[in-house]
Amino acid sequence: MGSSMANHLITNGHPLHVHNRTREKAEALLERGAIWHDTPESAANAADVLITMLGLPSDVEQVYFGKTAGGGVIAAAKSGSLLIDMTTSSPRLAERISSVARERNIEALDAPVSGGDVGARNKSLVVMVGGEEEAFHRGEPLLQQMGQSVTRLGPAGSGQRCKLSNQIAVAIGMVAWCEALAVAKASNLDPSAVQDVIRAGAAGSWGLTNLAPRALNEDFKPGFLVRHLVKDIRLAQEEADLQGLRLPGLEVAQKLYELLEKLGYGEAGTQVLFHHYETNRGVG
Amino acid sequence: MGSSMANHLITNGHPLHVHNRTREKAEALLERGAIWHDTPESAANAADVLITMLGLPSDVEQVYFGKTAGGGVIAAAKSGSLLIDMTTSSPRLAERISSVARERNIEALDAPVSGGDVGARNKSLVVMVGGEEEAFHRGEPLLQQMGQSVTRLGPAGSGQRCKLSNQIAVAIGMVAWCEALAVAKASNLDPSAVQDVIRAGAAGSWGLTNLAPRALNEDFKPGFLVRHLVKDIRLAQEEADLQGLRLPGLEVAQKLYELLEKLGYGEAGTQVLFHHYETNRGVG
Repeated sequence: MGSSMANHLITNGHPLHVHNRTREKAEALLERGAIWHDTPESAANAADVLITMLGLPSDVEQVYFGKTAGGGVIAAAKSGSLLIDMTTSSPRLAERISSVARERNIEALDAPVSGGDVGARNKSLVVMVGGEEEAFHRGEPLLQQMGQSVTRLGPAGSGQRCKLSNQIAVAIGMVAWCEALAVAKASNLDPSAVQDVIRAGAAGSWGLTNLAPRALNEDFKPGFLVRHLVKDIRLAQEEADLQGLRLPGLEVAQKLYELLEKLGYGEAGTQVLFHHYETNRGVG
Repeated sequence: MGSSMANHLITNGHPLHVHNRTREKAEALLERGAIWHDTPESAANAADVLITMLGLPSDVEQVYFGKTAGGGVIAAAKSGSLLIDMTTSSPRLAERISSVARERNIEALDAPVSGGDVGARNKSLVVMVGGEEEAFHRGEPLLQQMGQSVTRLGPAGSGQRCKLSNQIAVAIGMVAWCEALAVAKASNLDPSAVQDVIRAGAAGSWGLTNLAPRALNEDFKPGFLVRHLVKDIRLAQEEADLQGLRLPGLEVAQKLYELLEKLGYGEAGTQVLFHHYETNRGVG
C-alpha cells in the first residue's frame, strides 16, 4: 500500500525520500526519482514531512522510538517537521508519539486508512486523522492526494480510534452474513439466491454484497488478510477494555478469527470465515 | 401491515373478504368494499386465495389447524384454493401446513416479507416464497401487487428459511454497528462523525446508515420492535439447531435482545441496543 500511496505524491510533483526494509519494493519509486535512504532515520532527517505505513504497532514503536543505531525517527527528524503514521495501530501509541514529538518541536498525526490495496491504487482511501488542528491543516493537502476523503476526528489517537470502530463493524459484520448464509446453505436453500434477495434490505451490508459472492464461489483470496483482522480486533478489544466496555459481539469475532489463524488461514481473505461455518458447523 | 397490503389488492380491483381479531382495524377496507367475516374460517370458505398476516407461529398454527369452533382454515377452505401465509413463522410449520393442505387438494405457500410497515404501504416489500412451482405461479401475480420483488426460494418452508437468514444478518448486524459506535463514543469521539466516515466503506451496513443516526439522536421509536426480533431470533436458532449448526454471533444477539425485552424495551425499536451499550457498558 505504501508504494501506491507514495506514487501519487510523486505524480503530484513532491520530491520523495524513501526507505523500506526490502529495497526492491521501492525500485519503481526510485525509477521515478525518489531518493533512497538506508534507514528510516536517514529519510526522516532529510524530509519536512515523514509518512509511515507499517505492519504492527510494534513496528511503529520500533521505527518511532527505536533503540537501534538510528534511535528512531522522532529523534532523527528535523525540528518543525511533521510525522504522519498511516499504519492501523494503537491509539495510546499514537498519543505517546504525539506527546514525545511535541517536546522536540515536531508535529504528529495518526492517519490510518480504510480501502485496502485497491483504495491505495485508486486514491479511494478513507483517511481518519487524529492530532492537533494545526498539524492537520498542514498534512491534509498531502493526505488528500491519496484518498477520497480525509477527516479529522479529534486529538492524537482519534484517527486510530475511528479505524478501530471501523474494524469492529467489519469483523462482526462478517459474522452476520456468514451465519445468515451458512444456515441457508445447511437447510438446502441456494445461498446465492438468498444473498440476492436479502442484500438490498435491512440485512444488507458491504460484506454481504462484496465478500459473500466470493465466499460462495470458494474464492478465499485476500482482500483483507485474516491475520491483519486478528491484529485489529486485538487493538479494538484493548481500547474497549480501557474504556470499561464489554463487546460480546467482538469477542465472538475474535474467537472465530483467532481460530482461523490457528487453523492456518492467516494469509487467506477474511471471507474464509464462511468456509469455517460450512466445515466446522460454526463451532466458535 | 396486513391492511396496507390488502389495500393494494382492492386498488387493483380484487374483491376482498376480510377478518381481523379487532374489527376496527378492517374498517378502512370495509369502506372500500371489502366484505367482513366474523371468523378466519368463514373468510377462507368464501375465497379462492386466502392470505394471512399474523403475529406468532402459535397464531399461525391456531388459524390453520385451530381446535376451536371453526376448525382452522385448512379444514374450511374450498378444494382447489390457495393459502398464502405471509407471517414470519416456523419453516417446519410451513411444511406441515403445505402437506396437510395438499391432502385436501389445497395449495399452500409461505411468503414472509421484509420491509416493514413502510414497505407494506409503499409496495416496496421483498417477498420470499416457499412452495410448489405451480402454486407459486398462481400466487405470484397477487404477491407482486404488494412488493417490489417476489422470489421463490424452493419447496414449502423455503420462504421462511430465507426470512430467517435475513433476520440473522439483521440481528448480528445490529450488534456490529452498536459495538463500533459504543467504543467510539466511550473514547470521546463524536459517534456521528465516525458513522459518517465509516459507513461508505467495508464497515457499511443498512443499519449503520439507517438506524445508527436514530439511535445517536436517542430516537428509539420502532421501526422494528425488539420483541419481534426476539421472536425471529428464536425461530432462527431453532432452525440452526435442527441443522446441527452453531451460530455464536446469533447467540450473542439473542442474549442481548432477550435482556432488552426483560428490561422493558420490548416495544422499542431494535436500535435501542445502542442505548444498552451506553448505559450497561455492553454487559451481555
